[in-house]
Amino acid sequence: MTDTAPTRASLSPTPRSTVTRYRDRSATDRAALDAILDEGLICHLGVTLHGAPVVIPTIYGRLGDTLYLHGSTGAGNLRAAMTGEVSVAVTLVDAIVYARAAMHFSMNYRSAVIHGRPEPITDDAHRLRALRAIVEHSAPGAWDTVRPPDKKESAATTVLALDLTEASVKTRMGDPSDDPADLDSPAWAGTVPVHTTLGPPVPSADLAHGGEAPAHVRARRHGESSSVRRTA
Amino acid sequence: MTDTAPTRASLSPTPRSTVTRYRDRSATDRAALDAILDEGLICHLGVTLHGAPVVIPTIYGRLGDTLYLHGSTGAGNLRAAMTGEVSVAVTLVDAIVYARAAMHFSMNYRSAVIHGRPEPITDDAHRLRALRAIVEHSAPGAWDTVRPPDKKESAATTVLALDLTEASVKTRMGDPSDDPADLDSPAWAGTVPVHTTLGPPVPSADLAHGGEAPAHVRARRHGESSSVRRTA
Repeated sequence: MTDTAPTRASLSPTPRSTVTRYRDRSATDRAALDAILDEGLICHLGVTLHGAPVVIPTIYGRLGDTLYLHGSTGAGNLRAAMTGEVSVAVTLVDAIVYARAAMHFSMNYRSAVIHGRPEPITDDAHRLRALRAIVEHSAPGAWDTVRPPDKKESAATTVLALDLTEASVKTRMGDPSDDPADLDSPAWAGTVPVHTTLGPPVPSADLAHGGEAPAHVRARRHGESSSVRRTA
Repeated sequence: MTDTAPTRASLSPTPRSTVTRYRDRSATDRAALDAILDEGLICHLGVTLHGAPVVIPTIYGRLGDTLYLHGSTGAGNLRAAMTGEVSVAVTLVDAIVYARAAMHFSMNYRSAVIHGRPEPITDDAHRLRALRAIVEHSAPGAWDTVRPPDKKESAATTVLALDLTEASVKTRMGDPSDDPADLDSPAWAGTVPVHTTLGPPVPSADLAHGGEAPAHVRARRHGESSSVRRTA
């Protein structure tokens, strides 16, 4: 994927995170990794539990070179993540690819996969920054308007930091990759775009003080892309 | 999650696939599993490679009680999936949940996680049915219009069957779950819906015979949900 020396600003310093299939779909640009992580709403966390892989969806946040995850101290998956290797995937689906041949159907997508051994965060100030990053990732501007974690909540929450050094980015875009011999096929070929958009805010039924959402929530409506800017 | 005897029509017959956190977010209905699998466009496949978990996004198909995956015979992840346990997650994100307290921010989602040991499919007719299911899952109606796999393509393709017996469904919906003491907070609480929609078809630049998409492609446009009906 790259024959340059691995640096903090490039991806895939190890064989495990080097894309071996379809090398033209990989990217060495660190900015591409950040862009995918910042746009995604959820990640899929893979851990080893009782000797077998387990994949679970979860929310996350990013600050600089670190991805943050959190969960209940009682969750087996999080305990497994604290004591072993994990893999985290964030995938953005951009289009369904229609080809002239069955084996060339595909998706256009942007995907980031991170490998590493997460570190549990114990320092109170660091934990607060991490939890803020996670909340702000899915709800930019919300953190300063809500009650911060209290001691009981904090004690029940595991916060993990995963270094972004060992990561790979894979992207497919554009038209189907049909064989030349198939180009005169009568089949339709092209892409059907997949859009992820946000609808108007829906106030909670128990919202006593009226329903209108504040600016930081309203700013996300009107069919805007779900792209999440890292504001923390 | 359930204290009834495990049957083919219910979920989670083993401890591993029994949802232990937030039991109210689990569902025993087999129809719920099928609905999530049929609506998803991609899954996240978790395998163990060189002793560590690896998560990759991929397309899939379903026929009855079987999930089908495919990939290049040269792909390390697929080889790992052929020889060991896997975990497959399909996640549909429905809304971002804004709460009055930082620790109650969440997502509304529907998620299916399947565990098992996939079987490589070697029978030619079975392989063709599986590949058809995968193509039809993302592109309903397309299979009969395109060139089927030839011998060379088939020889280069691994097809895996994963039984759906060991699966769990987890769902969160509705308003935030705030603490009673936070209900008089001035913070806004509610949900911001997340929609996945399909845009108008974009013909491939090398489409010689004109751009208009046929009915099976056009039927998916006009902001329709990306929900994919299993047609195979």
